[in-house]
Amino acid sequence: MHTHHETHSTSSQLVRDIVIGMADGLTVPFALAAGLSGALSSTRIVVTAGLAEIAAGSIAMGLGGYLAARGDAEHYESELQRERHEIVTVPEVEKREIVDIFVEYGVQPHESATLVEALAARPEAWVDFMMRFELGLEEPDPKRAVRSALTIAASYVVGGFIPLTPYIVLGNAAVALRVSVIVTLIALFSFGFVKGQFTGTRPLRSALQTMLTGGLAAAAAFVIARAIS
Amino acid sequence: MHTHHETHSTSSQLVRDIVIGMADGLTVPFALAAGLSGALSSTRIVVTAGLAEIAAGSIAMGLGGYLAARGDAEHYESELQRERHEIVTVPEVEKREIVDIFVEYGVQPHESATLVEALAARPEAWVDFMMRFELGLEEPDPKRAVRSALTIAASYVVGGFIPLTPYIVLGNAAVALRVSVIVTLIALFSFGFVKGQFTGTRPLRSALQTMLTGGLAAAAAFVIARAIS
Repeated sequence: MHTHHETHSTSSQLVRDIVIGMADGLTVPFALAAGLSGALSSTRIVVTAGLAEIAAGSIAMGLGGYLAARGDAEHYESELQRERHEIVTVPEVEKREIVDIFVEYGVQPHESATLVEALAARPEAWVDFMMRFELGLEEPDPKRAVRSALTIAASYVVGGFIPLTPYIVLGNAAVALRVSVIVTLIALFSFGFVKGQFTGTRPLRSALQTMLTGGLAAAAAFVIARAIS
Repeated sequence: MHTHHETHSTSSQLVRDIVIGMADGLTVPFALAAGLSGALSSTRIVVTAGLAEIAAGSIAMGLGGYLAARGDAEHYESELQRERHEIVTVPEVEKREIVDIFVEYGVQPHESATLVEALAARPEAWVDFMMRFELGLEEPDPKRAVRSALTIAASYVVGGFIPLTPYIVLGNAAVALRVSVIVTLIALFSFGFVKGQFTGTRPLRSALQTMLTGGLAAAAAFVIARAIS
């Protein structure tokens, strides 16, 4: 069970990074291009803005993911040092903290006493236990920061080119808009469906939710851009 | 300690939502506007694209945050039902799972036996214990989904108007670009500094990292937009 859970965790981090990047990559360039094509008849500026957005969005999200993952790793390390220090300097306080965790679940101090002493006899395991069960922190994978950044950025670029390709290929903004809407709604639907299968939401519902999010964002951008111009 | 940790958790969810929204809101519209002003001399299309981006980005991120929070709540609920079912149908398997958790920390089965029996005697607490310690799931706040969506979207809009205001106020794209770069780098620096104080990264380092992320994203968008035009 636990091994299963661990495996699930690692693959779900990859899936989560792809979902983070692709969800925004499909939605924001789609909505921006749709919005601008409501204000402009030439596809050239739409393509320029779309590509600038894909560059900006993928770098901002990728670096954001990198810094978030590195921040998690540093936070874990600093809490680890603190727990290591505390089990040496204030072992009775730390033991009392384990007792208190179980008291929350209705377990009396005398019922957890044997377990607490067994943990306290193994300092390294004790620290790991406090990290996970007192602080709720999992040890982060040191390679995760870079992998997470690249996965998010690449997914954003892949997602972003789907709505933009019609504007690159076709010369007329109004025609490109219609093709982009159809292609992207299908892509959002498919992406939402696959995402649902990984995250445990019913696939059809996830597909419709994802399509609706992209559609609403695009509709709002379209209305605003047309209102200004 | 635990109460402190809980309080920290709730406020850090609000901070995390503000950080998610504002980090992208400051960066992407800034980078997009900078990129387009490298390709266009009039501020009008830059402003149109920027406002369309703010609308698209805030809705996509806000709805994304809403769906993520609702997904978490549904996942928690379905796992809760499963654990409730399992402690009735296969109680010995579930007891064995608690024993196995502690074995990972070097605690022998006989050392955790008293605790396991104490937990097993209180079904509701037992289920809560399995949710948190076997599956690592915290009970989500039911109001969180809507609050999270609004916080992320509002932070994105507030962040997005900072780089865009110079283009709205000034007529010349090249002048507006320079003002926008200065204003936004100061805003990114300040935002990174405050964020560092909340997340535990050293404030000055967080300030420089955040400024660099926005700057790199903007530079890439600028180079790409200029290369196309």
